[in-house]
Amino acid sequence: MKAYYAAIEAGGTKFNCAIVDAARNIIVEHRVATTTPQETLAQTVDFFKKQRAAGYDFDALGLACFGPVDLRKSSATFGYITKTPKPHWSNTPVVAILAEALDCRIEFDTDVNAAAIAESRWGAAKDTEVSNYVTVGTGVGVGIVVNGKSLKGLIHPELGHMLIPAPEGIQGQCPFHGNCVEGLASGRAMSQIWGVPAETLDDDHQAWDIQAKVLSKLCHNLLVSFSPEKIVMGGGVMAKPGLLDKVLRYTEDSLAGYLVLPDDLSLEHIICLPGLGSHSGLMGALALVLDEPV
Amino acid sequence: MKAYYAAIEAGGTKFNCAIVDAARNIIVEHRVATTTPQETLAQTVDFFKKQRAAGYDFDALGLACFGPVDLRKSSATFGYITKTPKPHWSNTPVVAILAEALDCRIEFDTDVNAAAIAESRWGAAKDTEVSNYVTVGTGVGVGIVVNGKSLKGLIHPELGHMLIPAPEGIQGQCPFHGNCVEGLASGRAMSQIWGVPAETLDDDHQAWDIQAKVLSKLCHNLLVSFSPEKIVMGGGVMAKPGLLDKVLRYTEDSLAGYLVLPDDLSLEHIICLPGLGSHSGLMGALALVLDEPV
Repeated sequence: MKAYYAAIEAGGTKFNCAIVDAARNIIVEHRVATTTPQETLAQTVDFFKKQRAAGYDFDALGLACFGPVDLRKSSATFGYITKTPKPHWSNTPVVAILAEALDCRIEFDTDVNAAAIAESRWGAAKDTEVSNYVTVGTGVGVGIVVNGKSLKGLIHPELGHMLIPAPEGIQGQCPFHGNCVEGLASGRAMSQIWGVPAETLDDDHQAWDIQAKVLSKLCHNLLVSFSPEKIVMGGGVMAKPGLLDKVLRYTEDSLAGYLVLPDDLSLEHIICLPGLGSHSGLMGALALVLDEPV
Repeated sequence: MKAYYAAIEAGGTKFNCAIVDAARNIIVEHRVATTTPQETLAQTVDFFKKQRAAGYDFDALGLACFGPVDLRKSSATFGYITKTPKPHWSNTPVVAILAEALDCRIEFDTDVNAAAIAESRWGAAKDTEVSNYVTVGTGVGVGIVVNGKSLKGLIHPELGHMLIPAPEGIQGQCPFHGNCVEGLASGRAMSQIWGVPAETLDDDHQAWDIQAKVLSKLCHNLLVSFSPEKIVMGGGVMAKPGLLDKVLRYTEDSLAGYLVLPDDLSLEHIICLPGLGSHSGLMGALALVLDEPV
């Protein structure tokens, strides 16, 4: 009998819910708005119960969740969204609520960690030992994969909050840190800095050049921190045509010849767009429940 | 029969050579100046041959080496010091030279990676899954340990060259990057910025406050990058009394309450001095040849 899996990419704006098979076919997909835990989780449970009734039974669910979350299995608050600025969601035991309602095994990681695993398993970072997945959207997140597993540590990385030198005349917008990557380069920060939504900025607006400079500092720091074989750059803002090329050029400038890459590799080979397009997150949720690479 | 191991902490100034037993007793120790590869390696080989003749036989040597080095076992230049600014040492096949002269197994890593492993196995980062070892001496290096192994990736981390915002009025001295951590906080940079050797600066000189601010930015970025359970801070400059406390205070300020640590942990618990004192490097070389934690 064919096996199905439940997958949720739980973001701050929407929960993307799907029934997926082991060959990564999305059988049914449904989006639930992220409002309150009560409402959003009830609608999520309802969707999956209907799928079961329709014959798409599953006994494992992968949950790729916005954070911060508690990933430590030994912790009393494992599976919680912890202290988040998002209203209503602090201290929500998402894993326990879904596990009880759907009576199934749940594998849990951050949304960006899961996407990083998916890209390293099936996408642009396939066949690497160390890779980074960057998402530049409303916020900025980076997931780290080492030998197929996400790097967690004490909590989990929060690389959007890495401090970098700000370009001259630009004031970072992070309420905690000012000039961290998220404060300078997230879609939210771009809107605040330039006064209009990022997607409405003309192709030749200086904002894109400055954006590329900021992201090149992130890439520089990722390269010297993790020595990744791939830095996969996804998220809505990275979809801007030409942005990746600018980031590459400025990263080269920033490194100033210091890093000598082996085997005549060029940065173009390392810093790239996602292989799974906009599906990194959902495929990440699937990756969490599939033990072995497919 | 008691087993002995050869250990070398190969630094840019000296090669610290020793015969060590599995209980980490240093039986004989000898320093060789780092001049040219011919001279330094010949004297190193000579020391170990004499130890063998004296009854301290060994069949494995741990080499914790200054970098950049090639750690990829599949590479044609595995075991080389690659392109280094240090005169005479670029493209030196240190592993092959020592293996041939001493006819033994050699395990090889960077000096800072090896020290990081030693601290995670026996020192201040014992019983952690993810830890960082920072050395602030003539240069700045950071080794990353994940589940007992050093993080290598494509080359190996070069975290001294992480870009950070410079304190106002301070000009970083790195010839490649200006304001990277090494350009701002290494002993060499301190001497250049203040015009006198760092160790001669008075306790109440503003240099120490600025040094602590720079290192707090490094700690901030390590915390959000690796989510380490420990950041062990060693090296000659960190031996300055009171410096660690200042770094802790400024790191707390820099994070601005963003990171909520689990189990009421405080930063004092995470950021600390080495457990192995000045022996992290040599014990690191030993750790490379001991397969199992002792």
